[in-house]
Amino acid sequence: MNNASKKHWKSKLHDIIYEADTPTGKLFDVVLFIAIIASILLVMLESVNSIDKNYHNFLNISEWVITILFTIEYIARIITVKKPIKYITSFYGVIDLLSTIPKYISLIFGGVHALAALRALRLLRIFRILKLARYLGASNNLVTALKASRAKISVFLFAVIIVAIILGTIMYLVEGEENGFTNIPKSVYWCIVTLTTVGFGDIAPQTPLGQFIASLVMILGYGIIAVPTGIVSAEYTAQNKKDKSSHPSENVSLNSQSCENCLAENHKDKSGYCYNCGEKLYD
Amino acid sequence: MNNASKKHWKSKLHDIIYEADTPTGKLFDVVLFIAIIASILLVMLESVNSIDKNYHNFLNISEWVITILFTIEYIARIITVKKPIKYITSFYGVIDLLSTIPKYISLIFGGVHALAALRALRLLRIFRILKLARYLGASNNLVTALKASRAKISVFLFAVIIVAIILGTIMYLVEGEENGFTNIPKSVYWCIVTLTTVGFGDIAPQTPLGQFIASLVMILGYGIIAVPTGIVSAEYTAQNKKDKSSHPSENVSLNSQSCENCLAENHKDKSGYCYNCGEKLYD
Amino acid sequence: MNNASKKHWKSKLHDIIYEADTPTGKLFDVVLFIAIIASILLVMLESVNSIDKNYHNFLNISEWVITILFTIEYIARIITVKKPIKYITSFYGVIDLLSTIPKYISLIFGGVHALAALRALRLLRIFRILKLARYLGASNNLVTALKASRAKISVFLFAVIIVAIILGTIMYLVEGEENGFTNIPKSVYWCIVTLTTVGFGDIAPQTPLGQFIASLVMILGYGIIAVPTGIVSAEYTAQNKKDKSSHPSENVSLNSQSCENCLAENHKDKSGYCYNCGEKLYD
Amino acid sequence: MNNASKKHWKSKLHDIIYEADTPTGKLFDVVLFIAIIASILLVMLESVNSIDKNYHNFLNISEWVITILFTIEYIARIITVKKPIKYITSFYGVIDLLSTIPKYISLIFGGVHALAALRALRLLRIFRILKLARYLGASNNLVTALKASRAKISVFLFAVIIVAIILGTIMYLVEGEENGFTNIPKSVYWCIVTLTTVGFGDIAPQTPLGQFIASLVMILGYGIIAVPTGIVSAEYTAQNKKDKSSHPSENVSLNSQSCENCLAENHKDKSGYCYNCGEKLYD
Repeated sequence: MNNASKKHWKSKLHDIIYEADTPTGKLFDVVLFIAIIASILLVMLESVNSIDKNYHNFLNISEWVITILFTIEYIARIITVKKPIKYITSFYGVIDLLSTIPKYISLIFGGVHALAALRALRLLRIFRILKLARYLGASNNLVTALKASRAKISVFLFAVIIVAIILGTIMYLVEGEENGFTNIPKSVYWCIVTLTTVGFGDIAPQTPLGQFIASLVMILGYGIIAVPTGIVSAEYTAQNKKDKSSHPSENVSLNSQSCENCLAENHKDKSGYCYNCGEKLYD
Repeated sequence: MNNASKKHWKSKLHDIIYEADTPTGKLFDVVLFIAIIASILLVMLESVNSIDKNYHNFLNISEWVITILFTIEYIARIITVKKPIKYITSFYGVIDLLSTIPKYISLIFGGVHALAALRALRLLRIFRILKLARYLGASNNLVTALKASRAKISVFLFAVIIVAIILGTIMYLVEGEENGFTNIPKSVYWCIVTLTTVGFGDIAPQTPLGQFIASLVMILGYGIIAVPTGIVSAEYTAQNKKDKSSHPSENVSLNSQSCENCLAENHKDKSGYCYNCGEKLYD
Repeated sequence: MNNASKKHWKSKLHDIIYEADTPTGKLFDVVLFIAIIASILLVMLESVNSIDKNYHNFLNISEWVITILFTIEYIARIITVKKPIKYITSFYGVIDLLSTIPKYISLIFGGVHALAALRALRLLRIFRILKLARYLGASNNLVTALKASRAKISVFLFAVIIVAIILGTIMYLVEGEENGFTNIPKSVYWCIVTLTTVGFGDIAPQTPLGQFIASLVMILGYGIIAVPTGIVSAEYTAQNKKDKSSHPSENVSLNSQSCENCLAENHKDKSGYCYNCGEKLYD
Repeated sequence: MNNASKKHWKSKLHDIIYEADTPTGKLFDVVLFIAIIASILLVMLESVNSIDKNYHNFLNISEWVITILFTIEYIARIITVKKPIKYITSFYGVIDLLSTIPKYISLIFGGVHALAALRALRLLRIFRILKLARYLGASNNLVTALKASRAKISVFLFAVIIVAIILGTIMYLVEGEENGFTNIPKSVYWCIVTLTTVGFGDIAPQTPLGQFIASLVMILGYGIIAVPTGIVSAEYTAQNKKDKSSHPSENVSLNSQSCENCLAENHKDKSGYCYNCGEKLYD
């Protein structure tokens, strides 16, 4: 850290990895995006028996390529941050590690099936892509509207669950074990299946009274689906209006930089220092 | 009632049980909340044969603990209200009693299956939790919007039922008994299953004409799901606007006190006397 | 018609049958409402084999009571209108006749099954009840909003059908006859079942490619359900606003009178003469 | 092209084929509409074995009539456009050719099954009908609202797919191959079926834990269906408002002419020259 040129080199690498505003930064993000998608496809394809049998070698080699790529990325991330411990113990740090090591472990212990489960953790890397989605800029209002209506949707879901418990118990008493409603938890499960208009049909009421109550449940579900929609619609309309009537000065555009020191994100454009720890930000 | 200190003691207990503004009152509500959730879980778990077989003793003891807790609560509620008869004959009073006694009755008559049904009444205690949900304050607008659109939603549901009856009869005539549409009520049930887009699949049209009519039913259902949503959205947007434009003085915050004398609730903050019966309210 | 007192008698009966503003008129409507509901319940119950077997006599007698009631109503309606031919050939006139005669015909030919189908026409009388629903006054805005968005919803449904035809054909080519997609119409039927999120499950894709396309169909269906909802919401919000900003003089209340001469309805309150044919209206 | 009267004759035919403002042009469009609907019905009916067996000759002759009609139309379109190559290589040109030739090819090679697939391309001609739908004028706002919310809906669908992949993998690990979740792609397919509330029921969770997670998936799906609806509602409301407040001069009505030279469409009413290539437009 005492070497200015080394710092500059590290800082450059930091910009490439943690930011998306420079051409090389964008290229890195796109390559990472493709690697994550490819790694997810690999996990999915390996689970298909017929494909795994025929293309085992190809899948194995691809898996190694991806693993090495992720390893390089992991090490690069550790080197370029000022406080590596903070990154390693962060949410993304743990995911990055856990999604990289299963292949190395399989080298030692062989292809244990339980490790496949661990490999699935790689899926969580997908959230990095969501970070990319933010740059599309389209979802800002949407997220704000969802956050504003979070409390209301919680109360609504709570009510839905209570209704499901009460109606599920009634259906258990009405239909009984002989018609598939073997216990109350299963009845509640059926009730949620019906209230949400999913309707698998693996369990279905057989008695006339059960079918009558089921009809009420369905019409109720049809009616209350209007509630979350109404909430989000209203909130979103309000958001849209606020957006249009707000002063231009309030519309601060955030960039994709993240602080080398504390990993804080969402810095305002042209910020010189981190709003969180005061560390100098390099453009 | 002629003893001042005894009144004070009772009044304190009353505050703990019926109100949620003091620390002890909040603690009581939280304990009650947990007890109700636990009691519901017990009823659900007991209905699962495999669990009931293995953990019968544990479930039995837990059941007794809950029952005794509810008994104490029931007696405390009777003691602290001025007009116990009014509480006992109220909605919550009857539920509290009915959800407590089944275990005692089972002592005398043994574990009769029909009593399990009675025990399920305990689920209605869940509405006490809904009372807690009110304090979240999030659902006020929602309830107002739903109340305002109640009449419209009723007319809509009435129309849905008429459509279901007419189309159900047509499907009965088209498909007939050999394809599962054994009678008109069952056909109407199928029609509701389809209109609400639940689609169990336990009954499904087999003839080409039946499938054609079913397609129309489904597209109709798809189209009319827009109606309740539109109603609630519009009502909720209107509610939101009214909320913002209303004078602050109109936004009266209601507290969780309930009158010792007449059990009336929704008193305004800092009210000195019950708006219903004029009884003094203790803070 | 040349006898003034007879005319007065007829006019009174006319008011009772065709209007709902007087106490006797309201009573008549309520009785008619109950009779229609009862007649529909009878048709439904007769279709249930087990009920028909056990309560055949009761159902038969009830059927006769309803039939005689409807006969009296039919004759009374003919007598009290000025132009009986116009009533007899009108929509309600034909329904009233068709829903009354099946029982008489069954007297001559015995209980032919095909007549049960005819008896089902009685269900169309339910539209008279819808006429009653109008007096609830709640659905006015709703109907206006639906009418305003009718053209848009038609275009939308047209697009849905085209999508269903194209995707249905693709699924027929992909899945083929061995997986239940026996022909294109059936594939289109499946596609409508899926697009509208009903999902019976009587036909379900088996091949990976079929399941992939099915996923696209489902997500498409999930996405486009937003369209009719958005249309109705917007239209309804607009309707609500117009309602509030309109001058009180524009809110003309319509009464339930119908002209004795031309059967025209929707007269303004306190109209002296029919807006359609100029006939005098009696209060 | 150097002969004025020939040009006039061609120009007339061009107006009939490419425009819908003159009586003959409208007649041509209606005939074409009927022919396309008939040709689609033919493809659908031929796929039904029982119908194909009994009415093979009728279907075959109808097919030839349609094919000859489409051939004449195809040639007429080539003759009347100034740059035939441009038409032939355009989207509609390719579809017109591909939907016409399968019958001719079947003459040479016999009724090869693979050709049936090619014949299905005729379905794409249906988009010509959509062009007609534009004249209904009802869908303009709708299309604008959908375009405006396209980006948001994309982000939303992207999020839905990520959720489906994560939850699908979890369900694969929880339920396993013995309960129908044979591999991750199939689990993801199930997850999409459930999230979109379609719920075929061909695969359904059997373990209590699986049913619990499925319940969460369903309630999640129920909750997030509100999102696209909210987006379109808000956008559509905004569109409606803009529409009403816009100056009348901005509402330019577009006619159905298309330029003879470059095939550009959406000319303003009373335009004298093509806005794209400057070619004279004949009324």
